[in-house]
Amino acid sequence: MSRWEPDALGRLQAAAIELYAEHGYEQTTVAEIAARAGLTERTYFRHFADKREVLFHGSEMLQEALVTALEEAPAGESPLDAIGYGLRRLGPFFDERRPQSLRRHAIIRSSHELQEREMLKRSSLVAALTPVLERRGVEPDVARLAAESGISVFHLAYESWVADQRGRGYAEHVDETLASLRALAAAPAAASLR
Amino acid sequence: MSRWEPDALGRLQAAAIELYAEHGYEQTTVAEIAARAGLTERTYFRHFADKREVLFHGSEMLQEALVTALEEAPAGESPLDAIGYGLRRLGPFFDERRPQSLRRHAIIRSSHELQEREMLKRSSLVAALTPVLERRGVEPDVARLAAESGISVFHLAYESWVADQRGRGYAEHVDETLASLRALAAAPAAASLR
Repeated sequence: MSRWEPDALGRLQAAAIELYAEHGYEQTTVAEIAARAGLTERTYFRHFADKREVLFHGSEMLQEALVTALEEAPAGESPLDAIGYGLRRLGPFFDERRPQSLRRHAIIRSSHELQEREMLKRSSLVAALTPVLERRGVEPDVARLAAESGISVFHLAYESWVADQRGRGYAEHVDETLASLRALAAAPAAASLR
Repeated sequence: MSRWEPDALGRLQAAAIELYAEHGYEQTTVAEIAARAGLTERTYFRHFADKREVLFHGSEMLQEALVTALEEAPAGESPLDAIGYGLRRLGPFFDERRPQSLRRHAIIRSSHELQEREMLKRSSLVAALTPVLERRGVEPDVARLAAESGISVFHLAYESWVADQRGRGYAEHVDETLASLRALAAAPAAASLR
């Protein structure tokens, strides 16, 4: 095998998702993933610490993309609007990878261990967004609450995008979920206007 | 040792928190916890699966208490108000146990493994509250979002209660955090009124 391995990382990810979908996550070994990708186990472990991590490399890229997008949100926007801006910017990332995203989502749902890992990634997203909001001048407690709410929106918009049969983009699901959150929080104020 | 072990569970919890606080979570063994409580390791394992679980028995009781309180919230209240009602009802549970809660909180923060466990308990709270809201007639997507938001409030109110030097009760921190969430979600509406 050549030592030159173009896009080894992408090939390993694609091979892992194929095998996990075909034979199940528990039943698949790193050796099988490497073989399907035409690479060695040694190459696998140069990129990923274990069987799980190959599914979460995208989450790290996503976190970076979300932090960057939030940093670029227009200065005058409220914390939640800035988060909405950041989340909508993730739209193309998800929409372009829809088939892989759906397969990955089904694999994650199949394993308790993977679901746990996914939830922990969520809390790392909250930790990454909070200081970005603080740098926008948001008070620390509010920044934390806004980051928590933003990640709830991120997550629930993702689930409704996965379930969407009508092919609407991720950004549209973000807008809907944000609107639900606003309606939820506004409920008593609306009642008092009656 | 007598086979009659009054409040073995409570004695094991108190002994574990003492030892984890004195010597650190990693350094303490189940044998030491059992010895400090005047019980056997066998008794320990009748109550808790491992070293970690002794710190999380309270979370399960709490989840039950929160589900019950939410079920008892007045029928006409909005989802977020019902959650506020449920969370405020946890006030005495926390306030009466403040010294243990603060010690437990410091122990959890000392260990990555314990923090992970705490985060997973959070998602189990969301899963427990969602169907209760649905039974109140809340539409499933909104119920899930309300449960997510409610658990963010639960968690952030708890952190600000822990940090509170002025001795205000947990319920007061719930009210403050809920008010922050409403202000956050209302921000653009307020801006449009200018």
